[in-house]
Amino acid sequence: MKDPLRVVVWNEFVHERQNPRVAEIYPRGLHETIASALRPHRELTVETAVLSDPDQGLPPERLAATDVLLWWGHAAHDAVSDDLARRVQERVVEGMGFVALHSGHNSKPFKRLMGTSCMLCWREAGERERVWVVNPGHPIAAGIGDCIELEHSEMYGEPFGIPTPDEQVFISWFEGGEVFRGGCCWTRGSGRIFYFSPGHESYPIYHHPEIQRVILNAVLWARPQGRRAEVPRHVPAEKAREKLTVRGPQLHDAGGNLHG
Amino acid sequence: MKDPLRVVVWNEFVHERQNPRVAEIYPRGLHETIASALRPHRELTVETAVLSDPDQGLPPERLAATDVLLWWGHAAHDAVSDDLARRVQERVVEGMGFVALHSGHNSKPFKRLMGTSCMLCWREAGERERVWVVNPGHPIAAGIGDCIELEHSEMYGEPFGIPTPDEQVFISWFEGGEVFRGGCCWTRGSGRIFYFSPGHESYPIYHHPEIQRVILNAVLWARPQGRRAEVPRHVPAEKAREKLTVRGPQLHDAGGNLHG
Amino acid sequence: MKDPLRVVVWNEFVHERQNPRVAEIYPRGLHETIASALRPHRELTVETAVLSDPDQGLPPERLAATDVLLWWGHAAHDAVSDDLARRVQERVVEGMGFVALHSGHNSKPFKRLMGTSCMLCWREAGERERVWVVNPGHPIAAGIGDCIELEHSEMYGEPFGIPTPDEQVFISWFEGGEVFRGGCCWTRGSGRIFYFSPGHESYPIYHHPEIQRVILNAVLWARPQGRRAEVPRHVPAEKAREKLTVRGPQLHDAGGNLHG
Amino acid sequence: MKDPLRVVVWNEFVHERQNPRVAEIYPRGLHETIASALRPHRELTVETAVLSDPDQGLPPERLAATDVLLWWGHAAHDAVSDDLARRVQERVVEGMGFVALHSGHNSKPFKRLMGTSCMLCWREAGERERVWVVNPGHPIAAGIGDCIELEHSEMYGEPFGIPTPDEQVFISWFEGGEVFRGGCCWTRGSGRIFYFSPGHESYPIYHHPEIQRVILNAVLWARPQGRRAEVPRHVPAEKAREKLTVRGPQLHDAGGNLHG
Repeated sequence: MKDPLRVVVWNEFVHERQNPRVAEIYPRGLHETIASALRPHRELTVETAVLSDPDQGLPPERLAATDVLLWWGHAAHDAVSDDLARRVQERVVEGMGFVALHSGHNSKPFKRLMGTSCMLCWREAGERERVWVVNPGHPIAAGIGDCIELEHSEMYGEPFGIPTPDEQVFISWFEGGEVFRGGCCWTRGSGRIFYFSPGHESYPIYHHPEIQRVILNAVLWARPQGRRAEVPRHVPAEKAREKLTVRGPQLHDAGGNLHG
Repeated sequence: MKDPLRVVVWNEFVHERQNPRVAEIYPRGLHETIASALRPHRELTVETAVLSDPDQGLPPERLAATDVLLWWGHAAHDAVSDDLARRVQERVVEGMGFVALHSGHNSKPFKRLMGTSCMLCWREAGERERVWVVNPGHPIAAGIGDCIELEHSEMYGEPFGIPTPDEQVFISWFEGGEVFRGGCCWTRGSGRIFYFSPGHESYPIYHHPEIQRVILNAVLWARPQGRRAEVPRHVPAEKAREKLTVRGPQLHDAGGNLHG
Repeated sequence: MKDPLRVVVWNEFVHERQNPRVAEIYPRGLHETIASALRPHRELTVETAVLSDPDQGLPPERLAATDVLLWWGHAAHDAVSDDLARRVQERVVEGMGFVALHSGHNSKPFKRLMGTSCMLCWREAGERERVWVVNPGHPIAAGIGDCIELEHSEMYGEPFGIPTPDEQVFISWFEGGEVFRGGCCWTRGSGRIFYFSPGHESYPIYHHPEIQRVILNAVLWARPQGRRAEVPRHVPAEKAREKLTVRGPQLHDAGGNLHG
Repeated sequence: MKDPLRVVVWNEFVHERQNPRVAEIYPRGLHETIASALRPHRELTVETAVLSDPDQGLPPERLAATDVLLWWGHAAHDAVSDDLARRVQERVVEGMGFVALHSGHNSKPFKRLMGTSCMLCWREAGERERVWVVNPGHPIAAGIGDCIELEHSEMYGEPFGIPTPDEQVFISWFEGGEVFRGGCCWTRGSGRIFYFSPGHESYPIYHHPEIQRVILNAVLWARPQGRRAEVPRHVPAEKAREKLTVRGPQLHDAGGNLHG
């Protein structure tokens, strides 16, 4: 039997502690609601981490032992250390899956991975959202019908400042008149990334069975697939695969070190 | 008549000052060789900038007035300030074209835009490189035949740690047995990015007419195309395009400010 | 001065002749409305072609002299000859631009170029459509604001059976609750393809100035960019760019002909 | 336990019957060599089919029961019926995986799926090929080192007339001086497609363990992922998800049938 997939659900865990309405929906934090939905799946071991934990929840050895990381943040993006953001980015490039949730579009690790603004339009009016499956053959849409209906949601609207997704799985419709590319896949280095927009903390969205199913699908899809690239690497001329005679001037010494 | 395209060729300008062999090939710096090749094109105004200039050559007002920026760096990537790297990234996302040359694959602005390692394998043996056109219909390949032959070049080899290019224009063959995706296009935000691998400073590659033609093509291709995205933007419920009744709790006040 | 871009607007021209309401909106056919909107642009020469013309409007020499072809069809897709569909496809691969309009998603040339079902959901209820710009930096969105509002439109809904677009320019919102990827770019061979969904013949959509602007932008974007690929091509061993000694058995003779 | 993946290896099976040197390498046909390499994998049931079988080896019910189809053809592409090519294409769009091998780049099903010329340059000189992994994190590269060395191979060279691959896994280097995008992934509809270029029948390439590993990886990667799109579909106004009042003229009757 295969080793289980090691999943960590990271949450800034701020509004659940500060706002009674949010606390009512997610009394133990939304990370616990998400983790509870994933735990029954026998291929997974699921842990949680929050911003107030030591090392902001992700010390190097824990991150190195994580196969798929889910990330939820909103009010405290700036409190996440640049060092942690960089370590998450590098771990994704090495092969770790990364699932950015809702306002995680504006988190440091996601923005570092995308290289763009990751900005959008938004409105908090409790309006209806309909998350359409545009790619029913994609594994992240498995078990979902034509669309997911959310009676109350925060509007996220275009233009969404992301690189063209490698695969578009969902696009959302909003009652107030907007659309949004709310389910997007990318690969960066050896790691897979999924962004999923529903999840405003004022509404019980992570209790919704179909939203939970999408998140489970995303975790399974984002599992590490292969090996990391072993670069940078200097290939000395005598180790070239074809026989080579060195010609011309060289700025590097035999070990590949640059000298002026 | 249209306004000319404002082009800046940025170079760290280190090895040309330190290494006599490099200085012999590029006595005024490789930026001047590149700029001289671009200047005859009447659609362009071409300036240069170097690391040792005030504000590292790109003060905010100059960057704001640049339509396409070419970037060459190798020995002094770390000397480029994080602030400049960030400003270049943001300017690209706004719409400025960016042409990263040779070892610019490892520059701060390019890595910020890619979000990946941008690493590769390499060997400096003066070997033959053949830059194949894989997309003859692409405007960056205009005027180039089947391939460009470089008798002496530095090998750059796969795996190259980049996001899947939006378009692949060139792939290189090396005498020592490697291949490399040496001509790649991406769009990030409203800006176009081209990476072009030939250009090791030990060899007179930027004097090669076909290399100069590719760089001219790239500059024209990377010209700003449209407008920047005007986000982030809060859309109040009363300004929704469809009539909306606000429902449910709200974490933001009427102006869109988040409150705990 | 550059040669003008030779544009042909092709229309099946069926409903305008059969249905009085359609005829009222497009008395000379919708191709003439579209062509009239393009003609003032001095870079273009604009002609029209209809299914009932000799050779279905596109004899080989005319197609060979076309730079960008617009295609509108709905009721008579099957009447288009397979030969014409094949010739259009091959001409696109050679470098001709192709703009498929509205129900042209189901036309033979478009389906041949896509390789997929090109199917969708639909409803004709005169409902409101809002065509959102998701990529304001794209040249096809030039001059368009946040979105285009169409008070009466036919709904086209997801899943849309297309390959992942190279670039997504527009996504539509519909009053009845659906979304649709209505503005998509692809490159196939040396040719550029744009699909634009608005344009149901019961409503005066091609009279709308912003719709006309998008079509103009698309024609300019789709103009031929480079040269066609000169393949297939046999490269005899003695003409290899590196010196080669032929080894092993051969199934082809010296001229590259396969023999059993 | 999951149902096994139903794999069919299709081969035109012409040269193995006609040419003694090919017969020596593949006495039972190259399909049997490939199938034998796949059979030990317990997740798979592996069958073969050849052009001379009834219904060219793929009657409708057999195709409908195939999860992943491998395709090798060279001398007899034209003998494959248009009907079979169309059925294979439609089955891929429904979700079947499709692995096109070597000269299968020019097969009818592959060309229908790509929509482009699929042409290339070529030379049969028994030269060395080196298949480089450009994406070590991709599941199709699992278990493969930096590259696969083939001492004798047929050269396939750029430009390769394909749509930009969704993912590039391998790029080949040839002794005679060319490069080739020999390992490419696409998704079309709900089906995954992999093209893998090595496999000229004059050389024992399908006996090579690493080539066999790549093919196994490709079969597992190409397995059906989700459900097929259920389109086309008419959504009557009274079944719209948002309450709709029909406005304006209609060209379709209540059942969605078009009338002139």
